[in-house]
Amino acid sequence: MAEAARTTRIPLVERVLEANDEVAAANRAQLERRGIFSVDLIGAPGSGKTALLEATLRALRGRRQPAVLVGDLATRRDGDRLARWCDQVVQISTGQGCHLEANQVRDALAEIDLDAVDLLFIENVGNLICPVGFDLGQSAKVGLFSTAEGEDKAAKHPYLVEAADLILLNKVDLLPYLAFDRSFFEADVRLLNPRVPILGVSATTGEGLEAWLAWLERAARSGLPASTD
Amino acid sequence: MAEAARTTRIPLVERVLEANDEVAAANRAQLERRGIFSVDLIGAPGSGKTALLEATLRALRGRRQPAVLVGDLATRRDGDRLARWCDQVVQISTGQGCHLEANQVRDALAEIDLDAVDLLFIENVGNLICPVGFDLGQSAKVGLFSTAEGEDKAAKHPYLVEAADLILLNKVDLLPYLAFDRSFFEADVRLLNPRVPILGVSATTGEGLEAWLAWLERAARSGLPASTD
Repeated sequence: MAEAARTTRIPLVERVLEANDEVAAANRAQLERRGIFSVDLIGAPGSGKTALLEATLRALRGRRQPAVLVGDLATRRDGDRLARWCDQVVQISTGQGCHLEANQVRDALAEIDLDAVDLLFIENVGNLICPVGFDLGQSAKVGLFSTAEGEDKAAKHPYLVEAADLILLNKVDLLPYLAFDRSFFEADVRLLNPRVPILGVSATTGEGLEAWLAWLERAARSGLPASTD
Repeated sequence: MAEAARTTRIPLVERVLEANDEVAAANRAQLERRGIFSVDLIGAPGSGKTALLEATLRALRGRRQPAVLVGDLATRRDGDRLARWCDQVVQISTGQGCHLEANQVRDALAEIDLDAVDLLFIENVGNLICPVGFDLGQSAKVGLFSTAEGEDKAAKHPYLVEAADLILLNKVDLLPYLAFDRSFFEADVRLLNPRVPILGVSATTGEGLEAWLAWLERAARSGLPASTD
């Protein structure tokens, strides 16, 4: 019975992904036409996606015109936090949905004054697995890990690491209190994605923030090859 | 187009869940017939599921006959860690699968000598969302959060909190280094599940471990009402 369900699932998943890809392509075309660089930020619950974006938005004030879409199962807490630093924030409530989909991004973009935006952050639902397969139309995928999660998390989430244009290792301020060997983490990343930049950051202390902002500026300027997988 | 995909998805998901429920019921019947108490341990990547089970298995040596099923997208690392403390460990590789399903548990149970087991831990895939909806046939669902994830994670994952028979808050040893207000976390849990026990633990220092072991013993003795949602 379970096996039967399994065999019927594959074609449907493919249809869902195809439909998603069409909407993602339209999102991407719209954003590129307007010269808006966009980041799909993917990390586990509590990896510090919102805290990193708070610090980023604060630093970008007066330098960039950002907007943020933020996905959560429930609560508006992240959206409220980010709205302190950015005029254009849309909270997407996914209910039981474990990732954002391109049509949610399309609908959220319709609520934004895109003429006043040159940088778009999409904070995906806290999840290292499901968001990876759904193209949203972003320019770049950023995988965010936290030192508190342990040094083995890159190897255990190969699809995110392979698809990422940048790997951020957050909460480096906690390293003195953790058994976390950064060289293990980085070696696992390198096996999966030899060329991806890896930046250590702390959204709390601000360590590494300048390197992350510099990456963003460079990527936005060069029009980083759009990630489409 | 995306909307069309959305409408066709619901009945299929229901069929998958029905098929899963049938297998889960058979798993549950098998485990109950043998008097094996079983725990489905659900937590985010890096919340400390494996570390908690290592400490638990070490403490239970000579007192209980445990077995462990452990789900991961990739690598055998968790299984290898747990096998140091337990003779009967089965690693379930889910590939891109974001949660365990009942048929994977059924197949893994067939690899175990159940005559030599009286306690079964199922370490689900690191994910706070998808594992919640899939009954595995367990006696109890335990939701594991980590202090490093932030005090807002219960409110943001209401389905897990509502379904949990026990909430564990791991990494309490890191509290001095974090902005984490335990009363906020506990108030959010209480709103969603007023009677669920909440235990603070540290897999690293052993703090709170005795209370967790006592809960396990009590639940196993009393045959805690099986969680079926």
